[in-house]
Amino acid sequence: MTEPAAAPIGVFDSGMGGLTVLRALRAALPGEDFLYLGDTARLPYGTKSPDTVQRYAVQAARILVERGIKALVVACNTASAVALDALTERYAPLPVFGVVEPGAEAAAALSGRGRVLVLATESTVRGGAYQRALLARRPGLTVLARPCPLLVALAEEGRHAGPLVDLALADYLRGMLPGDRGAVSSVLLGCTHFPVFRPALEAILGRDGATVVDSAETTAAALARRVGGADLPAARGGAGRLSLLATDGAERFRRVGRYFLGEPIPSVELVDL
Amino acid sequence: MTEPAAAPIGVFDSGMGGLTVLRALRAALPGEDFLYLGDTARLPYGTKSPDTVQRYAVQAARILVERGIKALVVACNTASAVALDALTERYAPLPVFGVVEPGAEAAAALSGRGRVLVLATESTVRGGAYQRALLARRPGLTVLARPCPLLVALAEEGRHAGPLVDLALADYLRGMLPGDRGAVSSVLLGCTHFPVFRPALEAILGRDGATVVDSAETTAAALARRVGGADLPAARGGAGRLSLLATDGAERFRRVGRYFLGEPIPSVELVDL
Repeated sequence: MTEPAAAPIGVFDSGMGGLTVLRALRAALPGEDFLYLGDTARLPYGTKSPDTVQRYAVQAARILVERGIKALVVACNTASAVALDALTERYAPLPVFGVVEPGAEAAAALSGRGRVLVLATESTVRGGAYQRALLARRPGLTVLARPCPLLVALAEEGRHAGPLVDLALADYLRGMLPGDRGAVSSVLLGCTHFPVFRPALEAILGRDGATVVDSAETTAAALARRVGGADLPAARGGAGRLSLLATDGAERFRRVGRYFLGEPIPSVELVDL
Repeated sequence: MTEPAAAPIGVFDSGMGGLTVLRALRAALPGEDFLYLGDTARLPYGTKSPDTVQRYAVQAARILVERGIKALVVACNTASAVALDALTERYAPLPVFGVVEPGAEAAAALSGRGRVLVLATESTVRGGAYQRALLARRPGLTVLARPCPLLVALAEEGRHAGPLVDLALADYLRGMLPGDRGAVSSVLLGCTHFPVFRPALEAILGRDGATVVDSAETTAAALARRVGGADLPAARGGAGRLSLLATDGAERFRRVGRYFLGEPIPSVELVDL
């Protein structure tokens, strides 16, 4: 059986934020092909009930599975938190990866018995998946979590630096910066939109400040460790291809998506779920 | 036939922003009953295609019509711009009101041959409904329109004043403030979320600055002018009742919705479309 090595890795998100994960995956695995689906017709998942998100995630995954993928990355925090078990069971033996566990793993490893701050959307914070995953690994951690809806809007406007970004970040980190009584030892970016703020955030934290953990990057690293193993054959070399699907708004996908992918988006195929 | 006077006025929006319109309607018509539906399971409408928005609007309106309403207010800019004709035709002879025309009417009347700035969501700006409605009334107007996604996030966070709001407003109004070469004569709030920023905006514009036109208020005034007429009998007095429906997330609806309604939200009934 030689087919799987040639198959792409499937990635899905409720929209375009997952393109930061795709970007990290392509950097970590440049020879692999990727097939990305943004369920833009039904975003955001974060405000929907867990049952609805699970149903949507299974539908989105089906499109990718039908086109033939060798692994599935759920590049969406909401779906990672509530639909990972359902997807793993439904599409077994396909390897399925979420973004929550790798991010939590890296932040817990870095933080010893310190304080971790999770920056995420309102629904991710309220769902508590990062908090649970961190404490399961290191019960001695102090885990703080802040919902940051402004950062989502700033990211989608393509504002990744400047006074508004600095003011918003300083506000969300108030009392937790180096020198503050509540200073944190690591900041976990628990929303796929947020890697774009990493430089601004690191500037605010300073050289001796908290370490920034990016769940896009840690997810890519987790997948890269598995590629080439028994369940996940590596591609045969050459530059990997990229195909993008969306359920609505191809024009907006191309325009806003490039901020997250970090390069122009050539074409987007519209699909119906 | 005495039934219609007792029937509520139906109001729908893709989510909670329309509660600012409901608030203005209740202030203008305190004796009327209102039935509000927020299609929170499928928000935002703004990123969806016109066909999808039209289909969703007809489904949302059906729920209200089935419960018996004497008029329908489309308290959503996206749906007002693309679905008003479809709704009017489908549910005739029910009087149907949108938010775009009354806002444009008021701003055009105020602005003479001056410059009008429309602040709205990205999709409303791109759809161009306000720009067309303004120019149809006063072809001599200069109409500027700015998409303000940050203001949506700030509004939903309950941040209606403070340094972040001031910085965001100043940024969106750059070059158009009193004294600037591009100073505008009126600012039209073309998003149902934005009435909460009216005090901050008026403070930035100053006493002699542009007039702020709020499409929630102008829509309420347009409806109030019709109530008591042949097609729209007035309620019989007493304090009007309020019923709220949503398609998902009743808890978030209550929590965030109070910022827009301006008072606590007692209960929300979940419905399926």
